[in-house]
Amino acid sequence: MESGAGDSSPGPDTASSAMPPTPFGERLATAVADRESQIVLGLDPDPSRLWPSYGDESPSAVPRERLTASGHGRVPADPDVLAVADAVLAHCRALIDAAGPACVAVKPQLACFERLGGAGGFALEAACAHARRAGLLVLADGKRGDVPVTAAAYAQALLSGLPVDGGRLPGLQADATTINPLLGRDSLVPLVDAARAGGQGVFALVRTSNPGAADVMDARLADGRAVWELLAELVDDLGRDGRSAASGLSDVGAVTGATVPAHLERMREVMPHTIFLLPGVGAQGGDVEALAAAFAPGRAAGLVTASRSIAGAHESTGEAPAAAARREAERLRRTAWELT
Amino acid sequence: MESGAGDSSPGPDTASSAMPPTPFGERLATAVADRESQIVLGLDPDPSRLWPSYGDESPSAVPRERLTASGHGRVPADPDVLAVADAVLAHCRALIDAAGPACVAVKPQLACFERLGGAGGFALEAACAHARRAGLLVLADGKRGDVPVTAAAYAQALLSGLPVDGGRLPGLQADATTINPLLGRDSLVPLVDAARAGGQGVFALVRTSNPGAADVMDARLADGRAVWELLAELVDDLGRDGRSAASGLSDVGAVTGATVPAHLERMREVMPHTIFLLPGVGAQGGDVEALAAAFAPGRAAGLVTASRSIAGAHESTGEAPAAAARREAERLRRTAWELT
Repeated sequence: MESGAGDSSPGPDTASSAMPPTPFGERLATAVADRESQIVLGLDPDPSRLWPSYGDESPSAVPRERLTASGHGRVPADPDVLAVADAVLAHCRALIDAAGPACVAVKPQLACFERLGGAGGFALEAACAHARRAGLLVLADGKRGDVPVTAAAYAQALLSGLPVDGGRLPGLQADATTINPLLGRDSLVPLVDAARAGGQGVFALVRTSNPGAADVMDARLADGRAVWELLAELVDDLGRDGRSAASGLSDVGAVTGATVPAHLERMREVMPHTIFLLPGVGAQGGDVEALAAAFAPGRAAGLVTASRSIAGAHESTGEAPAAAARREAERLRRTAWELT
Repeated sequence: MESGAGDSSPGPDTASSAMPPTPFGERLATAVADRESQIVLGLDPDPSRLWPSYGDESPSAVPRERLTASGHGRVPADPDVLAVADAVLAHCRALIDAAGPACVAVKPQLACFERLGGAGGFALEAACAHARRAGLLVLADGKRGDVPVTAAAYAQALLSGLPVDGGRLPGLQADATTINPLLGRDSLVPLVDAARAGGQGVFALVRTSNPGAADVMDARLADGRAVWELLAELVDDLGRDGRSAASGLSDVGAVTGATVPAHLERMREVMPHTIFLLPGVGAQGGDVEALAAAFAPGRAAGLVTASRSIAGAHESTGEAPAAAARREAERLRRTAWELT
């Protein structure tokens, strides 16, 4: 496999243009083929578990004087939020440098940056820029969902940017973002529309991987469907006008917890053109071999997310973090690729 | 009514302490009684509709030097973003100064700040600090919801702060936050636990005010309940151990769209100890007189949210924005207070 590092991913087409943007399904299918990977690298930085060696990993980015003052990758004794944000960013850059070549995208967990306040917002933007320079797509994992006027504001934050007098503030311009469909169709439309206009995508929660997901998403409706089947039909319908002709994949994806592989065949039946974002591999207990049904429409129809299993691979082996992460990401990449 | 401006709200008790914190229900009931108000002032700043006088209201309160002093690998802050964030903050401060005296809390809509990136994060923190100095509680409206490990990160971001070596990063330390229950009980527990430990609260979505809310939340289950009734029972149950003896109100509230007042009586039946956050007054079409059932357990059992109807009151009258906002907030306050 050729590493994509050094290439820059084309990025979403959020500028106004006479040409319609390349649909997300096609952009993703191209990226998956080029990188021979369906692996999405989760960026869930926890200040108490940052890589100890990041100071050596990413020399251009690391605030060395702060790091040497603060010891071995632990956050400084003085809880200065900027210093923590710097360390988080350095960790993310090192993780991207190590594991990125085996991946097609990164998935920053917005909660992990949000807890650093405004400084975390800047760290998030910088981590995404680093991923893009490494040729990776960016899937912003925020699971946002709100009434339409607010959904439009989230679309600006994460996808399209914000028009202001004299121009446009960029926002995060992620290639795709996760969304929560509890508030119904009209709450999703502003996000779907913004994504479609930019050649970007959304991934709506259909069935998540936590045990509690059964409480609501598995509840049985009067018509015999589970709530998650209702959500799946909504996803399929919203994606109808956003299919890429070349790949057959739509721009409205689904988050489908890999810990319930028994559901995957039924999900694929209801959502034949939907890209599945499959969390739960590794730390959450999923198993990549169980996911074959997800890939039925093509290699890009299933994205396998891994976060702690990659970033924390060294914890069980005693290796250097970067080497362990690189090996685990490559193992996942090969396993998924050979399966599909 | 005595204005609370100039007093400082006590704020959540997030520091470790031998004394258990005052429960959220009691803190809210005290604040409602003191301020004779059940009105929550929405902060949904839209850069294209900021009050025209903001330029005179506030010098930059975003800590520019903090944003620019430490450039270690951080994306340089776009000066336009900073200027917009400054204007947004000034607008929020002016709105709080004008309408805050008639309100018990502010409800910043996180999407509106998130679309300004890291600069928006600093503006959010500063707007919340201004509200707190004006004696107002802060209800962070983010509708977050995620698997348990991520829910814990959101709890740190919005409620408890983040423990790091040598201390704790503060996070937003809101008095309460809105949450999305689609992912089930285990996804809510980290947020409820964090809130309870700090004398803070959460408001889970039960039935929102947008038309599309019918798609999922009104879906009928096999056992005859609507999905929103399932969510309501979950809210009631999660709040069982978080009731304030004095007020009888629990620390797990519910977002109950005021555009469907017919549901309110049934909601109150299922959730007798729950504080209802009632959006939808004003721009979204709700009517404050229709909400009487919400207040059955006491004046603090229903909070009436208004955003655009206050901030945009001048648009229909031609008054100065601050005067129109003050009058509309006071009108809402009196209407709700006399109703209850």
